[in-house]
Amino acid sequence: MLNDNLAKVRASRPLVHHITNYVTVNDCANMTICAGGAPVMSDALEDVVGMVSISDALVLNIGTLNPRTVESMTTAGITARSKGVPVVFDPVGAGATAYRTSVAEMIIKNLRPQIIKGNAGEIGVLSGLGGEVRGVDSSASGDISEAVRELAKRNGCIVAATGPVDYVSDGENVVELSNGTPMEERVSGTGCMLSSVIGSYVGALGATMDAVVSAITVFNIAAEDAVARSNGPGSFKTAFLDAMAGMDGDVLESRSRIKASSGRR
Amino acid sequence: MLNDNLAKVRASRPLVHHITNYVTVNDCANMTICAGGAPVMSDALEDVVGMVSISDALVLNIGTLNPRTVESMTTAGITARSKGVPVVFDPVGAGATAYRTSVAEMIIKNLRPQIIKGNAGEIGVLSGLGGEVRGVDSSASGDISEAVRELAKRNGCIVAATGPVDYVSDGENVVELSNGTPMEERVSGTGCMLSSVIGSYVGALGATMDAVVSAITVFNIAAEDAVARSNGPGSFKTAFLDAMAGMDGDVLESRSRIKASSGRR
Amino acid sequence: MLNDNLAKVRASRPLVHHITNYVTVNDCANMTICAGGAPVMSDALEDVVGMVSISDALVLNIGTLNPRTVESMTTAGITARSKGVPVVFDPVGAGATAYRTSVAEMIIKNLRPQIIKGNAGEIGVLSGLGGEVRGVDSSASGDISEAVRELAKRNGCIVAATGPVDYVSDGENVVELSNGTPMEERVSGTGCMLSSVIGSYVGALGATMDAVVSAITVFNIAAEDAVARSNGPGSFKTAFLDAMAGMDGDVLESRSRIKASSGRR
Repeated sequence: MLNDNLAKVRASRPLVHHITNYVTVNDCANMTICAGGAPVMSDALEDVVGMVSISDALVLNIGTLNPRTVESMTTAGITARSKGVPVVFDPVGAGATAYRTSVAEMIIKNLRPQIIKGNAGEIGVLSGLGGEVRGVDSSASGDISEAVRELAKRNGCIVAATGPVDYVSDGENVVELSNGTPMEERVSGTGCMLSSVIGSYVGALGATMDAVVSAITVFNIAAEDAVARSNGPGSFKTAFLDAMAGMDGDVLESRSRIKASSGRR
Repeated sequence: MLNDNLAKVRASRPLVHHITNYVTVNDCANMTICAGGAPVMSDALEDVVGMVSISDALVLNIGTLNPRTVESMTTAGITARSKGVPVVFDPVGAGATAYRTSVAEMIIKNLRPQIIKGNAGEIGVLSGLGGEVRGVDSSASGDISEAVRELAKRNGCIVAATGPVDYVSDGENVVELSNGTPMEERVSGTGCMLSSVIGSYVGALGATMDAVVSAITVFNIAAEDAVARSNGPGSFKTAFLDAMAGMDGDVLESRSRIKASSGRR
Repeated sequence: MLNDNLAKVRASRPLVHHITNYVTVNDCANMTICAGGAPVMSDALEDVVGMVSISDALVLNIGTLNPRTVESMTTAGITARSKGVPVVFDPVGAGATAYRTSVAEMIIKNLRPQIIKGNAGEIGVLSGLGGEVRGVDSSASGDISEAVRELAKRNGCIVAATGPVDYVSDGENVVELSNGTPMEERVSGTGCMLSSVIGSYVGALGATMDAVVSAITVFNIAAEDAVARSNGPGSFKTAFLDAMAGMDGDVLESRSRIKASSGRR
């Protein structure tokens, strides 16, 4: 599965439109390319309808949101829905401030993204089960497995929560993913880059659990490769892009740590 | 010629003002320094007249345009013209959306940049000879050599179209440049970085074919050096900056692949 | 002192809120992490009050200022003062244009930052003793030691001016710091990154001379380590982040070059 999906993404080279933050946008663009996609970033209200219309996926990320870009996200999201373009939403910092939480809730309610991907604290907050978000760091206060399921079920979408273990749910089943390295926490924007990779996979494969699980697993295995070749956070990021671009599909299956939990408890 | 021009740019350290996109802006700043220039980025309407007035070149790039920055570009461009500061225009994504195409055409018509540098598809679209632009990728549908000549002639400027072979024309002559590496396509922003290098050369040497041809050639030879020292797109970008900063002028002439085509056909 | 301060910053992991420029923002985020802090970037008026309220320090940087972000800086700065959150101000480009100078003066007058950190030219201009600023480069025309003391005394704050030798003053004493490498001048944003490190130290240790001197010294020693492991500006930046993250506190004291000048002359 992982090998096939990697090959399909690379072969189809999905165009992934991002409305995202200016902190990590360059890394998102480069990671998209390394994952096999073609990135495009544009956030002007005047431009997004045209750009979404030719895209294979739309990634919305509120890392440095403001009313102008939120308006563009809304228009882009409505356009994406009407064109059948899948939307990945990364609610960066939801729970840290009232503005971020309210915009995240508005986007989920009004744009109904097919995929929501956050860290454990953000997903905890949005699920209503609780979480703590300090700036853009966070921790969940409850059962993350339950949080992803609850948020997915309520919104009829797929939800992923990242952390030492990543959880993905479609509202029924929950999958636990255990690849990755703590070094991912020491580089700004790894979460944003993962959303770009999910956008690439969803753009090529459709908005399925399979696509999201594949994207996270390939990303985390590349991170494992990179940490072995680096001397710290700076060289890790460089090696991470190299590892993603050079990923050998044959090794993915044997190294993947994917555990399908049981369904509804 | 190449060696002399490299030395002149480094000696004069031209101040290159950019109004550019937030995706690749950091790479543009660093590449400008590595090319021998001094970058400055500022896009507030309140600030650009003052900044352009002390600059040696102005680079306008519409990668993430919006009405606020387009207004600043317009004011900066008019100021540049009145002060004799050469303008390099990079019409990123022209042809991908109606907004981008119309802004690019407005900038060309109203600001009359001395240099237009795009990829083959963007230049194809703007020349009227045809091209296809998908996000920020593109291909020309016609004869690129004819497209650069046509666009240059119509606007009385110098036009460069990048691709596996790069074409530069002043509306009469066309020069073909064959240095470079396919790895340039796998890093976001190499096109933008090239515009910064052209800005540095034009700022030091004037808005001439010679300056543009030199800038593209030095850039592409540095890329060739970098790809030999890298393991993928991440380490390539790092090595590219190092190679540009450390470029030895003596090797440039022997490695350059510059072919002057005949004049008007 | 240096070793203890390094350990304290890493142990407390201060949340450092930035309203900064989009050129170097990613490097600022990563350098903050490598220094031991937790970065957050947000510039929407709707978001900054909430974000400052949970932060340990606020860094204001006018590298790509515009009226929207200046308004956010003003609101964030007033909030920081009322909450006792220390403010670090980096007046990027003050002196280069009238707009930048006037915004810098407004911020100093109205927000009364506890720390002002600029390059020698910016501090020279703001002190009234003279300086020349060309884009974002500069040189002081007078005695930098006197400029930091004067600006600090007039505003009741701590002022640092960077250059081949860095000067820090509280309005009475002046400290000269001689670590660092000329390579810092060849990478865009080292000044901005230093402001982020100062924000991290001030957030953990309080707005003291000791915190500012420690931050600059650790930063410059990491730069010395990095230049020894790099081949140019590209690999230097990567190695700089690695060196900062991996800094061994035991070597700091022996390598630091800190010279306490006499008090008021």
